[in-house]
Order: sequence, then C-alpha cells, then structure tokens
Amino acid sequence: MVTIKDIAKATGVSPSTVSRVLADNPRISEDTKKKVRKTMRELGYHPNIHARNLVAKSSKAIGVILPSSADKALQNPFFPEVLRGIGSVTHEREYAMVLSSAQNGEEIMSEVRRMVFGRYVDGLILLYSRINDPVTEFLNEQDFPYVIVGKPYENINTVTHVDNDNFTAGKEITKYLIDQGHEYIAFIGGSRELFVTVDREAGYEAALKEAGLPNIEEQKLHTEFLKSGGREAVESILALEKRPTAIVVSDDLISLGVLSRLEQSGVNVPEDISVVSFNNVYLSEITRPALTTIDIHIYELGAQSAKALIEKAENKSEPAKRIIIPHDIIYRDSVSKRES
Amino acid sequence: MVTIKDIAKATGVSPSTVSRVLADNPRISEDTKKKVRKTMRELGYHPNIHARNLVAKSSKAIGVILPSSADKALQNPFFPEVLRGIGSVTHEREYAMVLSSAQNGEEIMSEVRRMVFGRYVDGLILLYSRINDPVTEFLNEQDFPYVIVGKPYENINTVTHVDNDNFTAGKEITKYLIDQGHEYIAFIGGSRELFVTVDREAGYEAALKEAGLPNIEEQKLHTEFLKSGGREAVESILALEKRPTAIVVSDDLISLGVLSRLEQSGVNVPEDISVVSFNNVYLSEITRPALTTIDIHIYELGAQSAKALIEKAENKSEPAKRIIIPHDIIYRDSVSKRES
Repeated sequence: MVTIKDIAKATGVSPSTVSRVLADNPRISEDTKKKVRKTMRELGYHPNIHARNLVAKSSKAIGVILPSSADKALQNPFFPEVLRGIGSVTHEREYAMVLSSAQNGEEIMSEVRRMVFGRYVDGLILLYSRINDPVTEFLNEQDFPYVIVGKPYENINTVTHVDNDNFTAGKEITKYLIDQGHEYIAFIGGSRELFVTVDREAGYEAALKEAGLPNIEEQKLHTEFLKSGGREAVESILALEKRPTAIVVSDDLISLGVLSRLEQSGVNVPEDISVVSFNNVYLSEITRPALTTIDIHIYELGAQSAKALIEKAENKSEPAKRIIIPHDIIYRDSVSKRES
Repeated sequence: MVTIKDIAKATGVSPSTVSRVLADNPRISEDTKKKVRKTMRELGYHPNIHARNLVAKSSKAIGVILPSSADKALQNPFFPEVLRGIGSVTHEREYAMVLSSAQNGEEIMSEVRRMVFGRYVDGLILLYSRINDPVTEFLNEQDFPYVIVGKPYENINTVTHVDNDNFTAGKEITKYLIDQGHEYIAFIGGSRELFVTVDREAGYEAALKEAGLPNIEEQKLHTEFLKSGGREAVESILALEKRPTAIVVSDDLISLGVLSRLEQSGVNVPEDISVVSFNNVYLSEITRPALTTIDIHIYELGAQSAKALIEKAENKSEPAKRIIIPHDIIYRDSVSKRES
C-alpha cells in the first residue's frame, strides 16, 4: 500500500505538504499540487476518502432527494430522466450521487439531517418543492447548499432553482387548442398544492381569458400524478353536461390514464376529444395516438441543477440563481381541428 | 455544537468510551452503548460521518453500478424498479445508496476503483454481468464485497447473485404458445453475450424440441435492448419466407418496438401474430394490445440483492449464495389461439 510518506519522498516534499495537497489547502502553490498529484497517479495512491474528507471538509458527493413516496415517484419516467441529467454532471466533476430512499416526509427529514450533520454530502438537490417544508427550513437554518428542481414556495429570490416557465407553456399549449377551433377545453392537473399545477393552470386560464372563452370551474380537475388519477378525472369530465372537445393534461403519466379511460368509453382521440400534455417523457410517443406535449427538457433540468449545486457547494458566496430551461411544443397525433 | 466530551460528561463515561461506541467497538458492553447512544440522541449529537467511518472502517453506504451506458440503461423501466427495491432495504438499514453515473466500461472501472480504494462504500451491487469483466476481476482481487443481479459469467459458485430461472421461464412461455396451437415461433433477444438472452433462448429451444417442432436459425434474432432494436428485428421476421405466427421477445422494451413495427406493417396482434414478452415492467400493460409477459419481480431482485450485500459487508465470512426469485406468467391480450 502506497502511503503519504512514499508520495512525499518520491516528490521531494514533506509529508505535511502532501496532506495539505490532499486537503486542497490554498497555501500550497498550484505547481506543487500538480507535482504531488502526478506522483500520486504514478504510484497509484488512493487516499482513504473519509480521511481526506475529514481534512478537506468536502465529501465530493451530492445528495438527491426524491418527493415523499420514492416508491411511487420512480414510476414517473420524469425521475430516471432527471437522474440521467444529474449523473452526467456528477460523473464529469467526479462527484458521487447519493440517492435518498425515504418513503415519507418524516423519513426524508431524518435522512436529510443524517446527510447534513454527518457531512455525507456537500449539497442537496430537491426534486420537489412544498409549502412549509421542514426540510428547506432546516437547510436554511444550517446554511447548507441546496438547489430545487421546480419553483420554491418560499424565499424564491434566495434559493437557487431550475425550472421551466410553466405559466407560458400552459398558455401556449392552450392557445394552440383554441387556434384549432376548440372552445370547451378542460384541464386536468396534479394537486393544487404543487406550483407546477398552479402555474400551468394559470397559463391555461390566461389563454382562455385572452380568447374571450369562459373559465368554467367544473372543467378543471385535480388528481394524483399517476395513471389512475387520469382515469378518475376522465370519469368526471364525461359526466359533465357540456362535454369539452379538448383536454389540457398537466403530466404525461396522467395522460396515459386519460387516454385509456377515454378509449374504454368509446370516445375517440383526437376525433371526439383532443388531448395535449406536458413533459414529453418517452411514454408520450408510445401512446395511441402519440401525444402532442410540451417538452420541458427534463435531462437539462437535472444537468443544470447539478452544475448550479456544485458551484454553490464549492463557493458559498455564489449568488442564488433562477435558471429557466426553455420548452417546446412537440406536435404529434392527439389533436384535431374543430370546424365551427 | 455538541462534542464527544459533552456526551461523555452527560453519560458519566470517558471520552474514549464514547469514541469506541461510535466505532461500534465489540469491547464496549451493549448496555453502555445504549446509554451513550441515548445521550447522543437527547443532546442532538451527530458525529461527522467521515470521522466515524475512519474509525469504524465502514461507510454505511452501498454503491450501485449500472451497465455501461447509464444514459441508455435508465430508459429501460427495469432500472428504476430495481432501484426502488434496493432503496427499500438501504433505507430500512440506514445505508446510503450511491449511484454510479459512468457512461462506458473505462469510466465504470475508474469509478469502482475510486469507491473501493476510497472506502466510499461497503459493497457494490452490479446490475449487469459480462464475460472477462475487469470490474469483477478487480473486486475479486481486492476481496471487496459485491453482489450481481443476474447470473455471473465467472465464479458462479463463489459470487453471490440474485437471478430468475430464465431457462424455465423461457421454456414455460414458449410452451404456452405451443399449447395455443402455434408451430412457427420466432425469438427476439438481446445480445448473445448476455446470459439473460442465452438462458431465455435455451428455454425457448427446449420447449420447441420437447414438442417436436423445428428449431430454425432464421427465426432467432438478436438486437439491442431498446425499442429500435425490436423494430429492426421485426423487419427481418416479416421478410422470412415462412412467416411465424408467434414471437417470444426477451424484453418488454424490445416488445414495444415489435408491436409498433408490426402495426405499421398492417399486421394485427394477436390475430395475425401473437407476441409474448419478459419482465412485466409497467409498460407492458400500457401497450395495445396489453402484453402477455413473464413477471420477473424486479423490485424483489433489487431488495434481495441489497439484503445479501449488506449481510456480506457486515460479515465477511457470510458464504456466497445463489438467490432465485420465482417468476409468473401474466396473461393479457397479445396471444391468440391458432386453429390447426
């Protein structure tokens, strides 16, 4: 086993200099650091990470916190894709990615405390945002670096977050339906406690208003971010006195349930009802018909959040940022033109 | 900040006893450990994990290594589901789950070296198995705990692995098609370098042989574990002089491509061609028609591999095990009876 003494001898410096290089001490010149690191590579020296981290006060790891029930969450293809994006950056920067596996809010809190107090990670990416979240309160108290994917409920100007412009996206996709001649357009979203739903719904309402169309309360439904949620919402829509000719669905996985329930009722998409969706997970091209949906560039949401977090972790004075990832409409086969 | 000295004073023991409790030293009685830990909880003491790990020689973390291109791999719903299973156990046992984000063989190797030499993790779960894999060679050399999900190519009796009985599964699903009157049955698998393909294909061949049906080389195709792979294989099958009436596809994601390409050619499933598949990822009930497929219980593959690895990491003398997770056939709508 190669030791610090061996490295010191082979480089011609003192062992304490080698230790300081390991800790990336700013008092050691870049030249010396380069020389020492070269020797380490040549001799195949790998410092015990716990020893190194103890000195360097860094773990070279970031934690990723999934929303409450990790179980259900991982069913949504959003999450593997966002992990892909995060992983591309952690790999490049030689950071480890530690995944939370907590199942509920309490477990998340205890896992976060463990990660922070144990200095297990240098920072956290939260793949959710909630009102009165004890996790973000705790992270603020501890002044611990974190980044939110989505829109933070509190401290929007002091918390770095990576998001889409969901209001504009909701407005654009609704306007597209209106341009195709639709006048009765329903909305199916996730919980109204989530900003992503609130923003997309506000965009939908703005488009209706701009076109002088009525904003009907019964046409707006809220459900779980799951296929089963979509099925339930469709039942309410089909029971409406005035049946809509189009639906804006705020998540591809919900759309899956919407399509399957409509088919089961003998309602043809897009002939009888048009459907548009959000996210553009790979599911959305598999459905029949393939979904016209907003591509929110999930991979990029992940990659940019990891970059921003590492910057913040390596330099505490880095200012908070709002990073908006552009979206596109992907036109497929789930919308028909309505003759008036 | 609460220190070790504070804990010692409040419990009425010496600081070195507290350190030994942190390191879980067997020379300290369980009684004392309990008392010290209770004080830690009460005073809100969280040891720096790097300091603790340095003493305890444990990271309380396990690494999960995805196959070569993490990018492509995460597209297969197999992986989120297996992570779900692993996560359920790591959470329960208070282990962290570190996810590899390497993109190719070389990067995997350097990441594994870093994890092992740096004592970043106590053990590794490999979500793949390859012939002449430098990673497993290295892990054997280092005597580092690891578990393979799938069937190891080498040292099958000395490496703990969690697998399905893919031979029997392949035989059963093929026999089911034969029982429905099919005589010309094609096979579409992944690369023949993967045991999972080899085993399922051998089961398919055994069923044909047992029924006295010909085993035709042109009816067996090998492709990438991706939707596009399924599309390409179907093109070859449709070009065959004697067109099969059924296809055994060794992966649900490939089946997705198979179904979409068949539909595009105006071939109806199951009326013209029956399709059976493997894995039972949630995609398989979304396809039209819904797929008759082998449920390999992916979640359980993950959970059992994590359990076995933690056992091994905590007790080096734990013997190597082969853990076989039972499978079931899930009957859906992609098979028709063939009148002879």
